[in-house]
Amino acid sequence: MRQTFDETTDPSFGPRHLPLIRRAMADQGLDALLVPHEDEHQNEYLPAANDRLGWATGFTGSAGAAVIFQDKAAIFVDGRYTLQVRDQVDQATFEIRDLVDGGVTAYLEEAARPGQAIGYDPKLHSPDALQRLKAAAGKAGAELKPVPVNPLDAAWGEARPAQPTAPVVPQPLEYAGEDSSAKRRRVGEALAAQGAKAAVLTAPASVAWLFNIRGGDVIRSPLPLGQAILAADGTARLFLDPRKVTQDLPAWLGNEVRLETPDDLPRALAELKGQTVLVDPAQSSAWYFDTLAQAGAEVLRAEDPCALPRACKNPVEIEGTRRAHARDGAALTRFLHWLATEAQAELPDEITAVRKLEAFREATGALKDLSFDTIAGAAANGAVVHYRPTERLNRRAEAGSLMLIDSGAQYLDGTTDVTRTVAIGEPTAEMKARFTLVLKGHLALARVRFPAGTTGSALDVLARQALWAHGLDYDHGTGHGVGAYLGVHEGPQRISKSPSAVALKAGMILSNEPGYYKEGGYGIRIENLQVVTEPAPIPGGERPMHGFETLTLAPIDRRCIARELLTDEERAQLDAYHARVREVIGPQLEPQARAWLEEATAPI
Amino acid sequence: MRQTFDETTDPSFGPRHLPLIRRAMADQGLDALLVPHEDEHQNEYLPAANDRLGWATGFTGSAGAAVIFQDKAAIFVDGRYTLQVRDQVDQATFEIRDLVDGGVTAYLEEAARPGQAIGYDPKLHSPDALQRLKAAAGKAGAELKPVPVNPLDAAWGEARPAQPTAPVVPQPLEYAGEDSSAKRRRVGEALAAQGAKAAVLTAPASVAWLFNIRGGDVIRSPLPLGQAILAADGTARLFLDPRKVTQDLPAWLGNEVRLETPDDLPRALAELKGQTVLVDPAQSSAWYFDTLAQAGAEVLRAEDPCALPRACKNPVEIEGTRRAHARDGAALTRFLHWLATEAQAELPDEITAVRKLEAFREATGALKDLSFDTIAGAAANGAVVHYRPTERLNRRAEAGSLMLIDSGAQYLDGTTDVTRTVAIGEPTAEMKARFTLVLKGHLALARVRFPAGTTGSALDVLARQALWAHGLDYDHGTGHGVGAYLGVHEGPQRISKSPSAVALKAGMILSNEPGYYKEGGYGIRIENLQVVTEPAPIPGGERPMHGFETLTLAPIDRRCIARELLTDEERAQLDAYHARVREVIGPQLEPQARAWLEEATAPI
Repeated sequence: MRQTFDETTDPSFGPRHLPLIRRAMADQGLDALLVPHEDEHQNEYLPAANDRLGWATGFTGSAGAAVIFQDKAAIFVDGRYTLQVRDQVDQATFEIRDLVDGGVTAYLEEAARPGQAIGYDPKLHSPDALQRLKAAAGKAGAELKPVPVNPLDAAWGEARPAQPTAPVVPQPLEYAGEDSSAKRRRVGEALAAQGAKAAVLTAPASVAWLFNIRGGDVIRSPLPLGQAILAADGTARLFLDPRKVTQDLPAWLGNEVRLETPDDLPRALAELKGQTVLVDPAQSSAWYFDTLAQAGAEVLRAEDPCALPRACKNPVEIEGTRRAHARDGAALTRFLHWLATEAQAELPDEITAVRKLEAFREATGALKDLSFDTIAGAAANGAVVHYRPTERLNRRAEAGSLMLIDSGAQYLDGTTDVTRTVAIGEPTAEMKARFTLVLKGHLALARVRFPAGTTGSALDVLARQALWAHGLDYDHGTGHGVGAYLGVHEGPQRISKSPSAVALKAGMILSNEPGYYKEGGYGIRIENLQVVTEPAPIPGGERPMHGFETLTLAPIDRRCIARELLTDEERAQLDAYHARVREVIGPQLEPQARAWLEEATAPI
Repeated sequence: MRQTFDETTDPSFGPRHLPLIRRAMADQGLDALLVPHEDEHQNEYLPAANDRLGWATGFTGSAGAAVIFQDKAAIFVDGRYTLQVRDQVDQATFEIRDLVDGGVTAYLEEAARPGQAIGYDPKLHSPDALQRLKAAAGKAGAELKPVPVNPLDAAWGEARPAQPTAPVVPQPLEYAGEDSSAKRRRVGEALAAQGAKAAVLTAPASVAWLFNIRGGDVIRSPLPLGQAILAADGTARLFLDPRKVTQDLPAWLGNEVRLETPDDLPRALAELKGQTVLVDPAQSSAWYFDTLAQAGAEVLRAEDPCALPRACKNPVEIEGTRRAHARDGAALTRFLHWLATEAQAELPDEITAVRKLEAFREATGALKDLSFDTIAGAAANGAVVHYRPTERLNRRAEAGSLMLIDSGAQYLDGTTDVTRTVAIGEPTAEMKARFTLVLKGHLALARVRFPAGTTGSALDVLARQALWAHGLDYDHGTGHGVGAYLGVHEGPQRISKSPSAVALKAGMILSNEPGYYKEGGYGIRIENLQVVTEPAPIPGGERPMHGFETLTLAPIDRRCIARELLTDEERAQLDAYHARVREVIGPQLEPQARAWLEEATAPI
């Protein structure tokens, strides 16, 4: 099995590890230490060796921060993690605070004392975040100090896991669709147009995309941790731990790419003296800005030049992703069939469900990894938005309730991410009504046509309006970007309430995942991935419009739908979707599952 | 009559005035001159004396700019004015360019030559715009130079109209709802919270709101042109031309407000030395920033502190606005009745229609002014988004087409703005289909419920999605803020495609005005004003939701509706709206008009 169900932390982490950290802080004369979730690579998902926040606090969510004073400490999480943090973190040790509302800056203003020295690791903070933190500390009369060695790392010592050294391998052209030299030339031209001679690339996904390579340093995504410097002429220097370099790699990279080690990076940056160098402040830590400034380079703060080209998938990547979804949809449909039939004899617990689903994916023979740990939330566990089942929390499905299963897979040809909420027995009228409101939002966002220039934030309301009309909402974004055999979360595109200036462009893959969560009751989420289509004329219309092609193919549980709440248009849309599911998934299935699918996708 | 139909400019303005301007430029050693539409008060609508762009080019739209070189010139307008500019401006004299796409900066980069001096009037440009312009000129090797006297003003000379000196009068508490000292204390506290000792207020609407005064310096809005300095303790200095000060004004302002003349302003700014002073870079020209910097004040760039409190109307203002709309709706309904009956004998031209509507408004006895020149667009003229009928363009209504009438009024108790598109004879099937798509968008935006924190840009898609689905769209915003007996366009709230960080708050009044325009064919727009309601619980829901109360009351032409394109929900919503119109407007009408209204508002 790939997924495990043990807990890698527990609430004793804070009380046990804080004294060690405080001693290491004292050794450096620090009154406080900032502990962000992000690591040196500004990763969302971390290798175990870099999960400093987890080790210090016990909290394992994908975003957060802590501030450790000698006499107090606080942890900061967002709305997704308010339940989880109370479960994982010792509240006698850490005060729990909101990451967004006020956040670390407000805490520093209020908790720091005049003259105090607050340590930070310059490799872990973006320069913009750091500036806000410095201002906040300054208001309290305290000062932020960069640390030469992170006191937390010193305290962690021998117990800290080793840095990952997974092999880095070529991603063949039959999946990547564009060779690296073409990508490098294209991005290099964009650099030149911005007046830059070079760009420092620190986002592992950009490194992977640009050089058509994949790695395994971070669980659940094929990212190679490393950095690169791309010159405007398309040549590049790539910095990888030599232990990760596989035999075929140098030839694959070709002679326009110089392969070097991470130890070479500081000198390589120093060689950029006098040049205009693009660095993305959202992706690269303050260390890069400081190092380049010291070297006498002129830093151009701009978006990672690979981000937008990477987000707009080429036809080969889209076709690969379609294949991945057809394969993945069959595995998921087998699971849903099992859950609706065989599993009814004795209702399964979450871990059994997760294992069953993983086995169906493994049986495809193409599974490289899960794209994240499967969330299977039975009854009230479904209301914990970023729940992960563990032996301790494991819960059995209950008749008269719902089970939420959010899962995905990494295949060589594409990355999937899908959520289905299924009825266990007969759901209540309230469950059905709310499921249907979520479905209405999902369908509205799937069928919208929109002109060039439209942002994801402009479309977000489509997924929420039916819920809003009934006084309901969900506290997470509606859609995130998804990579092609890369991260299951990628930017710059997204669909959310927060204003965004990024227009949706053809080839971008996004999730469409509205939800509803009743704390202590049940959770509902319906998620498909969809790809932005080229602007196309509409009969009788005047302006070509983008649209979405739905990639994910698996039945949406008709037993959860209050049919009378759907309009004719919505019913026809759902039926057409289910007809596609039947057509693409059906032929892959065994007779019993296929018969079940026929029924599960019958017109509503 | 208030509205006139002559043209105040013609395409000869460019060829006649440019030589004069160029001579004045040469006198100051300038190779080029920037001519923005905005005046010293960053007004949208200008007193004639300040319409420099109009005098230089002939263009009279509400936004735009020109750049005049010695050997070439260009005018810049946005999508609303692409038709109008070709009609008003001599294209042999001015190259026509897009204001938004590229705009003035791109033109400077491309048109300026190394070493050239490009003049600008520091009182007419925001500091941010200026910075972009300076950078663009710099890229071309040219330099931007502030002019001590605007060469255009010098060229205009005697022919230039006098500055307006309309009397400034108190706006009684029965309309304003909150006395000035309470407002000043409230805004003063907000200043203190931002760390400012004072704010410089240059937006006429803010001056009018804060001191509960109204003026008449700008046609169609009761704005007094003037400036103020508000101290954090709630005291203020108000700078008004003494010719405008009416007898009651000093007592009305009270002893916390020092009344001074505009000549006193530079010295008053100099007295702010050493203090932190808030100035809004979107409202105040570079001159204020330069003057304060020279005086040694610390400038805090932040939004005009009156903007948000002014936008959130108090209960007295909302109640007044409701009365204004009930009165205005009756006048408009009488007009629609006339148009549908008596006027059918001989179809009227646009000017006749405008005069008739103005007469109905005048007959209320409460009309202070129109809130803008009525747009009556018959047939193809309806497709010109910001059309204003003139003797030259005047067109007769045509059977089998549509007439678009966008109008509004200023009353002491409120400002109105309403658009109705009416059938002349029998509209075509295409007209009806597209009218219905516009109506669907209008209804969706009227009925939406939304949580606190939602911005107008998040709601914009609701008004467009039905059009988008048919390959159609409109090139203007969906909603603008509206004042309470103040400007018919006010910020900071708006509903549009462009990302906005301004959350909609209870008491904000906005227009809801989707449209569709077929160039050379016809125009459709349906516009009501609506006020954001307090968050309220919804039965069965969990979270209180804002909503909109529709303020505008006048029938929407049922003859233009393709009934089968509306959902049951939409039909019920339209019928409920029409029932309200019948109930509030009906009793004010004469028997014949009332009988007609009964029919016009019957269930669809």
